[in-house]
Amino acid sequence: MTAPPVRIALLGAGTVGAAVARRLVGRADLYERRTGRRFELAGVAVRDTARPREGIDPSLITDDAETLVDRADVVVEVMGGIQPARALVERALRRGVPVVTANKQLIAQHGPALHALADEHGTSLEYEGAVVAAVPVLSVVREALAGDVVTAISGVVNGSTNFVLDLVARRGVPFEEAVRQAGELGYLEADPTEDLEGLDAAAKIVILARAAWGVPVTLEDVQRRGIADLTDEDFRQAAGAGTVIKLVASAWCRGSAGHRRVEVAVRPVALPQDDPLAQARESANVLIIEAESAGTLRLQGAGAGGDETASAVLGDIVRVVRRG
Amino acid sequence: MTAPPVRIALLGAGTVGAAVARRLVGRADLYERRTGRRFELAGVAVRDTARPREGIDPSLITDDAETLVDRADVVVEVMGGIQPARALVERALRRGVPVVTANKQLIAQHGPALHALADEHGTSLEYEGAVVAAVPVLSVVREALAGDVVTAISGVVNGSTNFVLDLVARRGVPFEEAVRQAGELGYLEADPTEDLEGLDAAAKIVILARAAWGVPVTLEDVQRRGIADLTDEDFRQAAGAGTVIKLVASAWCRGSAGHRRVEVAVRPVALPQDDPLAQARESANVLIIEAESAGTLRLQGAGAGGDETASAVLGDIVRVVRRG
Repeated sequence: MTAPPVRIALLGAGTVGAAVARRLVGRADLYERRTGRRFELAGVAVRDTARPREGIDPSLITDDAETLVDRADVVVEVMGGIQPARALVERALRRGVPVVTANKQLIAQHGPALHALADEHGTSLEYEGAVVAAVPVLSVVREALAGDVVTAISGVVNGSTNFVLDLVARRGVPFEEAVRQAGELGYLEADPTEDLEGLDAAAKIVILARAAWGVPVTLEDVQRRGIADLTDEDFRQAAGAGTVIKLVASAWCRGSAGHRRVEVAVRPVALPQDDPLAQARESANVLIIEAESAGTLRLQGAGAGGDETASAVLGDIVRVVRRG
Repeated sequence: MTAPPVRIALLGAGTVGAAVARRLVGRADLYERRTGRRFELAGVAVRDTARPREGIDPSLITDDAETLVDRADVVVEVMGGIQPARALVERALRRGVPVVTANKQLIAQHGPALHALADEHGTSLEYEGAVVAAVPVLSVVREALAGDVVTAISGVVNGSTNFVLDLVARRGVPFEEAVRQAGELGYLEADPTEDLEGLDAAAKIVILARAAWGVPVTLEDVQRRGIADLTDEDFRQAAGAGTVIKLVASAWCRGSAGHRRVEVAVRPVALPQDDPLAQARESANVLIIEAESAGTLRLQGAGAGGDETASAVLGDIVRVVRRG
C-alpha cells in the first residue's frame, strides 16, 4: 500500500502564497521522490474569492479557512498580519497538525506561546521563511550549529531600507529622494513605517535571538532606532570618514548558563567600507554568525521576494513531512 | 527514569579529534540540555597510545578501536585515511550504530557504498565536517533547500591553495615562493600534492554534487586541473586583465529528472575582481549555491581548522542523538 497523500492547506494567496501553490503543483513528483509522499494542495483560503488567482485551480479557492484547516495534514500560513492568522495557526496546532508559516510579526509577537501549544499537542511550528526569506539562517543556527555555541548574530536584514541606504551611499541620491524612489520601485510599502522605523528588522532579530539562545526575548527588548530621522548631513559625515551607514540588526549573549544576558538592537551604524555588512548592495541581505568553535560564518542572499520566501516555506514543508 | 548516557567512541585524536574530545567534555551540560541525553566519551582510539594527548583523560585512550566501536552508541571517525577508517565505519554501521565522520576522502571514494550499508542496517552516516569544515554547506543543500532545486554550486573550497593564490595576487609574491611560504606557515602539508593538484577540492565537490542531485558522481568524473603548473606569467596576464586567479570547484546540473547530467570540475579560473569568489582572502572558503527559487546564496567561513571542523562534527552528533 502506498502512503496516503499529504493534504496541504494554504492560507493566503499573495506573492508568497501564489509561489508556494505553483511550486507545490509543479514539483509534486520531486517532493514525492524526496519524502515518499504525494503532496496535494487541499485548498487555498483567501479573503476575496472573486479575485482571479493566476496559476491556482479555481476549485481550490475558498473563504472558509477553518474548514480547510480542519481537513489538512499540514497548514501553511502565508496570509500575514496577526488575526485571523493567529487563530488559524492555533486551531491547526490544537488538532496536532504541523504549521509552516512565513509570518514574521506573528512569530515575533506570539512565537513562544505558539511553540508551547505545538509542544502540548505533539506537533511542530516552522518558520524559516519568516526570517530573511531564502537565506537559511534559522536552519544554520538551530541545526548546523546544534553542537556549537553561538555568541553573536548581526546583519543587514531589511532589504527595503538597504536599498534606500545604498542609493544614498553609492549613487549620491539625497535621502528623502531615495525613500521616494524606493517606494516607486516597490521596495517600500505605501506605509513604510515598518521598514524605516526598524520594526521589520526588530522582528527578525528577536526570532533569531530566541533560536540561538532559547531565551524569551520580545520586541520590547530591542534597542531600536530606524533610519527615518537620518539626515543628508549624517550621510555626508559617514562618507567623509570613509564609512557606510547600514541599518544593522544585532543580538549577542554575555555570561553563561543561568546568568545569561541576551541583548538585541536595531540601529543605523557607520561601518568601514570593507566590513562584510557594508558590502550589502541594493536589497541584498547579509548575516554574520559568530560561534565559539565555528568562528565567523557569513550568509548572504535574497531577503525578500515571493519565490525566494517560498523556497524556505517549501523546505519547511518537506522537512515536516520527512519527520512524519 | 532518566535516559541512559550516549556512549561516544572517538576514532582519532589529531587536531580535529582533540577538539571534539575537549568540547564533548566541556559542553556535556549544554548537550544534555539540547538532546535530553548525557554525552559520555566512551574512549579514544589512537595508533600510538604512548603519545601524551593533552586534555584527554589517559584512561580513555586505547589502541583497540574494534572493541571501542562495539560498545558505542555513536561512532565518530576523525582518523583520516581510507584504512582502517573504512573497516571501522563499516563495523559500526553493520551494528546499526550511527557514524559521524569528517573524512573527506573516505566519503568521496566510498560514500555511496557506506550510505547503502547504513540504510541496510537502519542507521545513518553524517559528514558535514568532511566538506569545508564549519561552513554548513551540506546542511544547506540537503535540509534548508529540501523544497528547492539546486542548479549549480561553485566555490573556493581549498584554503591552502587560496592562501597561495592570495599571496601572489595581493602581495605580489612569486608563485613558487608563495608555495614555499604557505608550507612554512603550515597551510600546506609536507606533501602538498592533494591541495596543489586539486584532489582535496575534487573530493569536496563530488560530495556536494551527490548531496545536491543524488547522483553517483565519482572522483573520476571531475574535470580537474590544479594550480601546480601555473606560472608567474599566468598571474601577470590575469592581473593585467583586472582579474584574479582562484581555484574554483564547481558542479552543475543540466536537464531534468530522468535525463539529468551532472558535471563537476576543479580548475584555476581568472575571475573579475568583484566576483564573490574573487574576494576570498587568505585561507577563507566561499561557496555560491544557485537554486531555482532561492536564487543565489553565498556561504563563507573557515574551511579548515580543528575547532572549526569539530563544530560540524559536534553538530552532526547532536542531530543524530536528537533523532534517536
